[in-house]
Amino acid sequence: MSGITRFALSASWVVPVEPEGVVLKDHSVVIEQDRIVEILPTTELDQRYPGIATESLDGHALLPGLINMHAHSAMTLMRGLADDLQLSVWLNDHIWPAEQRWMGPEYVHDGTQLAVLEYLRGGITLFNDNYFFPDVTAAVTSQSGMRACIGLPVINFPTVWAQNTDEYFARGLEVHQAFKGEQLISTAFAPHAPYSVDNDSFLRIRKLAEEMDVPIHLHLLETAGEIADSERDYGLKPLARMQQLNLLDTRLLAVHMTALNDADIETVARHGVNVVHCPESNLKLASGICPVAKLIAAGVNVSVGTDGAASNNDLDLLGEIRTAALLAKGFSGDPEAVPASAALAMITINAARALGMEAQLGSLLPGKQADICAIDLSAPETQPIHNVISHLVYATSRQQVQHVWVAGRRLLKNREPLTLDVDEIVSNARSWQKRVGKNHASKAAG
Amino acid sequence: MSGITRFALSASWVVPVEPEGVVLKDHSVVIEQDRIVEILPTTELDQRYPGIATESLDGHALLPGLINMHAHSAMTLMRGLADDLQLSVWLNDHIWPAEQRWMGPEYVHDGTQLAVLEYLRGGITLFNDNYFFPDVTAAVTSQSGMRACIGLPVINFPTVWAQNTDEYFARGLEVHQAFKGEQLISTAFAPHAPYSVDNDSFLRIRKLAEEMDVPIHLHLLETAGEIADSERDYGLKPLARMQQLNLLDTRLLAVHMTALNDADIETVARHGVNVVHCPESNLKLASGICPVAKLIAAGVNVSVGTDGAASNNDLDLLGEIRTAALLAKGFSGDPEAVPASAALAMITINAARALGMEAQLGSLLPGKQADICAIDLSAPETQPIHNVISHLVYATSRQQVQHVWVAGRRLLKNREPLTLDVDEIVSNARSWQKRVGKNHASKAAG
Repeated sequence: MSGITRFALSASWVVPVEPEGVVLKDHSVVIEQDRIVEILPTTELDQRYPGIATESLDGHALLPGLINMHAHSAMTLMRGLADDLQLSVWLNDHIWPAEQRWMGPEYVHDGTQLAVLEYLRGGITLFNDNYFFPDVTAAVTSQSGMRACIGLPVINFPTVWAQNTDEYFARGLEVHQAFKGEQLISTAFAPHAPYSVDNDSFLRIRKLAEEMDVPIHLHLLETAGEIADSERDYGLKPLARMQQLNLLDTRLLAVHMTALNDADIETVARHGVNVVHCPESNLKLASGICPVAKLIAAGVNVSVGTDGAASNNDLDLLGEIRTAALLAKGFSGDPEAVPASAALAMITINAARALGMEAQLGSLLPGKQADICAIDLSAPETQPIHNVISHLVYATSRQQVQHVWVAGRRLLKNREPLTLDVDEIVSNARSWQKRVGKNHASKAAG
Repeated sequence: MSGITRFALSASWVVPVEPEGVVLKDHSVVIEQDRIVEILPTTELDQRYPGIATESLDGHALLPGLINMHAHSAMTLMRGLADDLQLSVWLNDHIWPAEQRWMGPEYVHDGTQLAVLEYLRGGITLFNDNYFFPDVTAAVTSQSGMRACIGLPVINFPTVWAQNTDEYFARGLEVHQAFKGEQLISTAFAPHAPYSVDNDSFLRIRKLAEEMDVPIHLHLLETAGEIADSERDYGLKPLARMQQLNLLDTRLLAVHMTALNDADIETVARHGVNVVHCPESNLKLASGICPVAKLIAAGVNVSVGTDGAASNNDLDLLGEIRTAALLAKGFSGDPEAVPASAALAMITINAARALGMEAQLGSLLPGKQADICAIDLSAPETQPIHNVISHLVYATSRQQVQHVWVAGRRLLKNREPLTLDVDEIVSNARSWQKRVGKNHASKAAG
């Protein structure tokens, strides 16, 4: 007996994600401290690890914690505030005025807590965020015990977070320094978009991102309209401009990417750019459709994000890959496009790879971090069980997520979060509802 | 005090669907026997109905029972059996062989029970079915206390249900007669598709449907491939052939309708044909995309169906209208297309209208049947509540459905069905899993 924490999770199915498509029936995952040490048939568990503390998860599938590759977490507080509008009306008349009026540390604290609660209840163990007050987002996440890659925002507009470009950089670097030692928190530069960030800032980001070895999280080609604007302002299409600024490489997390022609896809593939697909947000705002099937065929690493709750409106990655898998087929005309196992890879191993964390996260393999979610497939809605991976993508609801562990620590047990106060979080959300809603035209407000 | 059953449901919100977009805050629905008698502010309930038995549904929204306009209910037993395949491979190598091997009264009984359980847990109170052994489907549904419009199948191929066209008609008419007196069961003719039903049968159906005053439930233009085949075999496109056969009218429930040009849309609108949109099935099989925004703009009555669980794979109408609302925006390029309230109409009042039941069903109005579902919006995933209808369409999961009443009778209480044996249904599904799965290539079978 040593002081090392060791336990096993024995489930009806283990879906390691690597290798793709594999389902291990009646297997156990052995966890030591924050890591997976072995995955073996449950019949062999007692012999290999006599007396090991074991949790039996009959009817459950274990899979890697899900990774949300594009989030504006604190925007949960604007969920349903404005829908079914032209993008310009939605932004100018609803989202931006609400942000200008309410955004600050308390707003970001309460909104992010609500998002973290929703993430954990949906099997999400890491989110890649892009919002103001990243220090608050990082602190809230760290307290919850889940992981985040915290975007350090840069935009050529003053906000309550920073008055000018220099201040964005200074405050961002402060946040990076403050959370450098934390196991669960990493950072990325988060320049808003090509149309809202100048060349000097991009060059500065490129240099710093290399020195700090962090990703660059960028909205890119969300709509076709960006192309004409870029040609007018820079004499170049956005992708060509990013190429000229030496930003196209494996460090780039290019979010949305709807307006791509075949030559663009080849460029993206050649430079190893990571594409982050946000199908539901793109559909809802009628932004365009990311050619996922073609990108995958070209060898591009595609992961998936929910986007913020103001444009989706659920932070539901299982729902998001269902949409991604269906939309890829409908849009390409090929029902074999993005099969279930490829969709599951998008919110696990592909996401980990995009963040440069594939050695630690994204699949259930010995030596990797014990970020695990347990999904109960015994509900009538997932009967009969001819194919576990098909069910996870096409039939399972996130409400079937029962348990979540991050770095070997249990954060969700029977759908109850162990590190968050649900009543307080919901009560805070309702208090914001009164404040934000009162200033907003909403006939159906609660 | 009389022998009449009268009770009230007091909810935080009542969404009557008619008029569209209205949300009544803190209202009560008063029910007498099988009907709604009044909807009034809860503050006035005691005065108007002193001592009335009242159930308080704090944090819940009440809305009309949802109506699934295209189902092959018994196909739940093939959920996840075969996915991500070309349509011809999926049908010829997987679905049809499995049906040929297993389909019969026991299969349809067990599969339909599983579907009915899933429907009720998802707030669905009526489904429009199209499958073999409709007598069994009708009996199972009737026993459960929910409603169905039972399709009487006609197809120019022998099956275990009927050997030839005459037998399809004879057996169908028997089923119609047998269930004629039942309040909860209606019937429709269900000719399979233009490519699998001859002109004589269509003419016979038209005549009988008029005499019996029942709808005609038809797969029409599921794929563009049907057009060339029809021109080859009949010298006419399918829509023109149906027009020539006098089938285009308000009695027709035209399911799928993906391959429509602007002239077709005008034809459909002029004849009052009801379009049943199955967005998730159409995407998954890459069948094509129904131009919903254009159809609605032309005044066509559009409702929504899940299709069977072998091609979707969940029988989830809330999920289906989320997809319908998002896809309509993405496909039309107009983010104002199919706003949330229009999406909700598709699975309530539009569906009732398509079935000719709009005087009885599809909205919460005095005099209508008390088919009601109660959805709990207090979950973190639907906080804050700026807009109830937005949440129902864009953020709510069917797992938030707590209670269901059909014709004033409670069928679901705290997510538990009151007329179905869940353990038995799940156990039957698992028994079919072993039988069907054993004969099927599925690496990941349970």
